[in-house]
Amino acid sequence: MRFVDIIEKKKEKASLTKEELHFFIDGYVKGTIPDYQVSALLMAIYFNGMDAQETACLCEEMLYSGDVMDLSAISGVKCDKHSTGGVGDKTSLSLAPMVAACGAKVAKMSGRGLGHTGGTLDKAESIEGFRVDLNEQEFLEQVNTIGLAIIGQTQRLVPADKKLYALRDVTATVNSIPLIASSIMSKKLAAGSDTILLDVKYGEGAFMETAQKAEELAETMIAIGKHFHKDVRAMISSMNQPLGNAIGNALEVKEAIATLKGEGPQDFTELCLKAGSIMLQQAHLANSESQARAMLMEVIKNGKAFEKLIAMVQAQGGNVEQIKHPETLPKAKAIFEVKALCDGYVKELHALQLGTLAMQLGAGRMVKEDRIDPSVGIVLNKKDGDYVQTGDVLAYVHSNHPLAKQWLQDFYDAYTFSAVPQAKQSLIHKVLGE
Amino acid sequence: MRFVDIIEKKKEKASLTKEELHFFIDGYVKGTIPDYQVSALLMAIYFNGMDAQETACLCEEMLYSGDVMDLSAISGVKCDKHSTGGVGDKTSLSLAPMVAACGAKVAKMSGRGLGHTGGTLDKAESIEGFRVDLNEQEFLEQVNTIGLAIIGQTQRLVPADKKLYALRDVTATVNSIPLIASSIMSKKLAAGSDTILLDVKYGEGAFMETAQKAEELAETMIAIGKHFHKDVRAMISSMNQPLGNAIGNALEVKEAIATLKGEGPQDFTELCLKAGSIMLQQAHLANSESQARAMLMEVIKNGKAFEKLIAMVQAQGGNVEQIKHPETLPKAKAIFEVKALCDGYVKELHALQLGTLAMQLGAGRMVKEDRIDPSVGIVLNKKDGDYVQTGDVLAYVHSNHPLAKQWLQDFYDAYTFSAVPQAKQSLIHKVLGE
Repeated sequence: MRFVDIIEKKKEKASLTKEELHFFIDGYVKGTIPDYQVSALLMAIYFNGMDAQETACLCEEMLYSGDVMDLSAISGVKCDKHSTGGVGDKTSLSLAPMVAACGAKVAKMSGRGLGHTGGTLDKAESIEGFRVDLNEQEFLEQVNTIGLAIIGQTQRLVPADKKLYALRDVTATVNSIPLIASSIMSKKLAAGSDTILLDVKYGEGAFMETAQKAEELAETMIAIGKHFHKDVRAMISSMNQPLGNAIGNALEVKEAIATLKGEGPQDFTELCLKAGSIMLQQAHLANSESQARAMLMEVIKNGKAFEKLIAMVQAQGGNVEQIKHPETLPKAKAIFEVKALCDGYVKELHALQLGTLAMQLGAGRMVKEDRIDPSVGIVLNKKDGDYVQTGDVLAYVHSNHPLAKQWLQDFYDAYTFSAVPQAKQSLIHKVLGE
Repeated sequence: MRFVDIIEKKKEKASLTKEELHFFIDGYVKGTIPDYQVSALLMAIYFNGMDAQETACLCEEMLYSGDVMDLSAISGVKCDKHSTGGVGDKTSLSLAPMVAACGAKVAKMSGRGLGHTGGTLDKAESIEGFRVDLNEQEFLEQVNTIGLAIIGQTQRLVPADKKLYALRDVTATVNSIPLIASSIMSKKLAAGSDTILLDVKYGEGAFMETAQKAEELAETMIAIGKHFHKDVRAMISSMNQPLGNAIGNALEVKEAIATLKGEGPQDFTELCLKAGSIMLQQAHLANSESQARAMLMEVIKNGKAFEKLIAMVQAQGGNVEQIKHPETLPKAKAIFEVKALCDGYVKELHALQLGTLAMQLGAGRMVKEDRIDPSVGIVLNKKDGDYVQTGDVLAYVHSNHPLAKQWLQDFYDAYTFSAVPQAKQSLIHKVLGE
């Protein structure tokens, strides 16, 4: 088999066989197929796509390029959840304790943030002492005992994806649906849970720009799930404006805590309830959405969801006092109030720009090597549909440095106003899967 | 400027600017842009193409990546000719002496063969002692004195093309019209002639499969010529069956000699007359095709065309006796007659297959490192439209080994027959350019 013939075949829009995909992934991981041939194939895949069978086979080859977690030591249905990422997305920190409090087992491997999107690990590490590097034994035991754990991916998980992703990043081949789908799903499948809920975000702050593209990606990942006989479902949700009010690591932990106590922002709470109700049904802990929602509302109300977060932080070596007293989490030197310069209804609130602004404060990474400042970020005080009068606080900016003129200008540019009332945008567009 | 943004731009079907193309070619030749990024761009160019301005700019950047020949020391109009390659294409060996005998100056840089297509240099080297590595001074002096020379490309000519072509070859990005056009034209322009005649071949033995694709390539190259204010014209000619009767190096030299004496195959002679008449008009040595044809017929008849070949071979150190007595050129140990197994009219004669069969005898290279055997090859005795009776000789196979059963089988498969008379295919489809 010659790799150039495989490139040619995809260039001519033919489907690659399981054997050809094996030759590709195996050879690339072993280093017998060079980057320059793989990048040509990736670009051909960008243009000509892959059918469902091909995508599933690619995912399978990637999956078995490394270790696959064996979670059989954990009793009950193991539920995983994955977000394609966005601005202000602290969902795992609230959702995992909520569903664990209802009896689900959440053995979660999370990622770090890059660019304008945050990562759950970075957020969790705002908590003093919190360890994301549990070994396998510790991880399994913790999930078995308290029902949840959040750790980083081990190095041996899907090496093919690490190598491919690094290449895609520098060859403009990131935004290909079969490549995104097989990348995400290979990691989720390697993490070993029984069920997977995907939160596929669309909008300017997301990977997928339109709801239609997000649905296409979700359908592709659900089809991969079918190939592996896994219960995979997907929510299609908007990332046109940030999720919740807080953007920035410790600030988002605070918002996640508030939400577990029933005091979180309406949009973020609703997303957690929707996601949680699907996960509880996937875990066969509820038979209907209404039953699941009632269970989730109950664990918020009776404090069990919050207790789960405390149990997890304690188990992973984190400072529990910071959870009990969120005001002791890392704090920036100053909080600047950014005030409205005009009257009007908030029409748009650009998530991408706000994510970038938070990154510039130190809340995110421009490049992988950057260090994150957990204390800084933005807390929005006005979101879409809100009426604003001149002088009202649009947002509180937590910063360790004075705000530059350009930064402020960019902040104001992130908002657009209208003289007429604006309807709030719907957050959850659709749910897909069985 | 980041190269990944240039890839992204082409992926989104935008046109690249002169500055971006400079950044690309300059960085690639210097080694600051890696192969894996360039191959992704090449694949994006394959899918999204390049407009006329982009293609000309790419060609210009490639051209100036190395030396450009200065032919000003040669008096008169310097005429170049290029064939996109095919099976049995010995045109330069007959055409250059013909037009030189009519007063044109032909300073020709040729290539070697690869796969089923032959190369002029390999053919010329069938002549004992023939040097294709003249230095610049020798080359200019020879063209000035006798009107023609055929040499290999110097190493310093278009280094960008050498590097790009090697990468395209292993990344399935060869068959892209802007890439082919800028590759060919950068080399032709670097060779420094005033006029260029392109013989763009189509059909199964050619680079371009259809006449339409060949026209598209020709138009693209003519447009590049316009950008450089050069008189570039193109013939679109068929390569569905081999050109002439001989395939193989010394055999083709023999056929070229016969053609210069007016004793060549009809199709090949016609191609030379057509090409020669265009070149003489480009050189302002004739005002019309009929005048040019008359001049060419005259130099064939009066022996001056043949004398030019002798003068060139002598000047380049070749054994002139082999030209005067072609039977002394390298000869294979055996000549096998391959006879028809049925009666009928020859319908098709597959050039690609016959080229491959000749290569298998040793007349061509499977990979660049292969050595060529000048003595071997195929001389066709029946071509399209000919009536054949069982037992008639289809071809004479010159070989240094017995013919394998599979080889013979493949040879018979290269012919198809019909019970009803077949019209001869037209050889020259169209002439393009001013």
